[in-house]
Amino acid sequence: MKRIAVVGAGTIGLSWATLFATKGFRVFIYDPRNDLKEVFEEYVQSIKPTLELLELPTEEWVQHITLSTSLEEAVKDAQIIQENGPENLAWKQQLYAEMEQFVAPDTLFLSSSSTLGASDIAEKMQMPGRMLIGHPFNPPLVMPLVEVVPGKSTSQDSVESAMTFYASLGKKPRLIQKEVFGFVANRLQFAMLQEAMHLVDSGVVSMNDLDEIVKDSIGLRWAVTGPMLGMHLGGGQSGMEAFLRHLGTTMERTWREQGDVVLDDETIKRLAEKSLGAYGHRTIAEHGRARDELQIEFLTKRREK
Amino acid sequence: MKRIAVVGAGTIGLSWATLFATKGFRVFIYDPRNDLKEVFEEYVQSIKPTLELLELPTEEWVQHITLSTSLEEAVKDAQIIQENGPENLAWKQQLYAEMEQFVAPDTLFLSSSSTLGASDIAEKMQMPGRMLIGHPFNPPLVMPLVEVVPGKSTSQDSVESAMTFYASLGKKPRLIQKEVFGFVANRLQFAMLQEAMHLVDSGVVSMNDLDEIVKDSIGLRWAVTGPMLGMHLGGGQSGMEAFLRHLGTTMERTWREQGDVVLDDETIKRLAEKSLGAYGHRTIAEHGRARDELQIEFLTKRREK
Repeated sequence: MKRIAVVGAGTIGLSWATLFATKGFRVFIYDPRNDLKEVFEEYVQSIKPTLELLELPTEEWVQHITLSTSLEEAVKDAQIIQENGPENLAWKQQLYAEMEQFVAPDTLFLSSSSTLGASDIAEKMQMPGRMLIGHPFNPPLVMPLVEVVPGKSTSQDSVESAMTFYASLGKKPRLIQKEVFGFVANRLQFAMLQEAMHLVDSGVVSMNDLDEIVKDSIGLRWAVTGPMLGMHLGGGQSGMEAFLRHLGTTMERTWREQGDVVLDDETIKRLAEKSLGAYGHRTIAEHGRARDELQIEFLTKRREK
Repeated sequence: MKRIAVVGAGTIGLSWATLFATKGFRVFIYDPRNDLKEVFEEYVQSIKPTLELLELPTEEWVQHITLSTSLEEAVKDAQIIQENGPENLAWKQQLYAEMEQFVAPDTLFLSSSSTLGASDIAEKMQMPGRMLIGHPFNPPLVMPLVEVVPGKSTSQDSVESAMTFYASLGKKPRLIQKEVFGFVANRLQFAMLQEAMHLVDSGVVSMNDLDEIVKDSIGLRWAVTGPMLGMHLGGGQSGMEAFLRHLGTTMERTWREQGDVVLDDETIKRLAEKSLGAYGHRTIAEHGRARDELQIEFLTKRREK
């Protein structure tokens, strides 16, 4: 049985651990927090409905998990490490240098980092060739995407191992070819979120209506085609070229007129208050279950094609 | 039987006409093009598979359509006019002033305009209170969204009539509260497309991979929750406030580092060439059918919730 260490047991780490364990890996979780056992037990209960939706075993996987009491114990016999610590460069550099002392030379180091790159994180490693980013879209148990981002020292072998590993879990790893800040999914997401927050905050549209607008147009479209094929089909028989020639000046004008959002305390409070008005009638857990249920159904439909 | 005039029979106009006719309206289409009859007959054949997917009658609706030989004939007895002409302000102002001479005082004037606003379009009308924007997301036969955007003179009655009318067709009309250029869906869409084109054009990610990344992350997410509820659930128990506090500086940095795209001839050609490499293995019609099929299945799933 292959062994995986999950270092850092926040939301992302626990979701990864569940995925690994349900796919037959032996999983060692390490997190310095004192209440790891309680947090894990609570999580095991809360994740059951999602596992049912995914048609995965809801109980047996827990037997594949060990809560390690030290970093060394968690990583020492692992073939793969998936790290999910805070986005703190000095801390991560230290952590990787430390983990490296305990493991075999062919251990693969994967970081869930969403902003720090492998070139920086691996800087203090003896063998940086075996370290790279495997950034999931939360929660990794449900969402297919993993952004695989090598650093300047990452070996081709490690890239291939990471791609194969994530694919073997049923995920959809995608290779990012340059180490840009925020990688791809978040850069795209944040570009749209800025304009979304601007339009709501300036009274153009209500928060609820903005969500419904996206669900009934670009959300639906991009879940099916993605944005580039979406443009290609928007141009009729002449495809993307016609789309860009027809809409180019309109697009450029909207870019010039996009709102700037500054996420200061007041703006955050204003938007947070609107979000409670729009969504506060249900708990986060209720919304989350409805979200995961429909996402899983859409994924099943898409796989059938 | 209620009468609707569809003025302008391009892609959008024909799709509206089909929707109106299948929902039991008597539809009069006017377009000055000489080959309207041929274009319409070809369209009737091509739209059959989509009508089947929508479980709408595939033949009978054609009997509810009249191809009018003059603007006057098309609009004179219509209760509602849906106009789909080119985005040319002087032309539209002239058209609306002309149509107004032929119709009853309670006729509702709706424009599919994606950029020009009702305040400008209605400027030369005698009764501008009855004119507003009803901007669909293409194709209106399939996509639920209609952005309803009143101008400065639009009456409250007209807004309500438009909202009721589109809802009666099974569409999801949303009221836009300020006349911003590009309205909401396209402003949001274009904000993300700029960064998407930048990332592909600068070699960060392949065009195909970018589409897959979006389909497997934010596309899927936004089809289910929209972006604002998506943020709210991304913040854990403390909702949007926690999300924005946790990711605010990261978001702001990606905004600063977003790429500027200039849609000049060379850029358009470069992207168009990549799109043929990525998607040229299937025809536009084949891609379009697959897109509509899965979109319709997702919509059906979503309605069941």
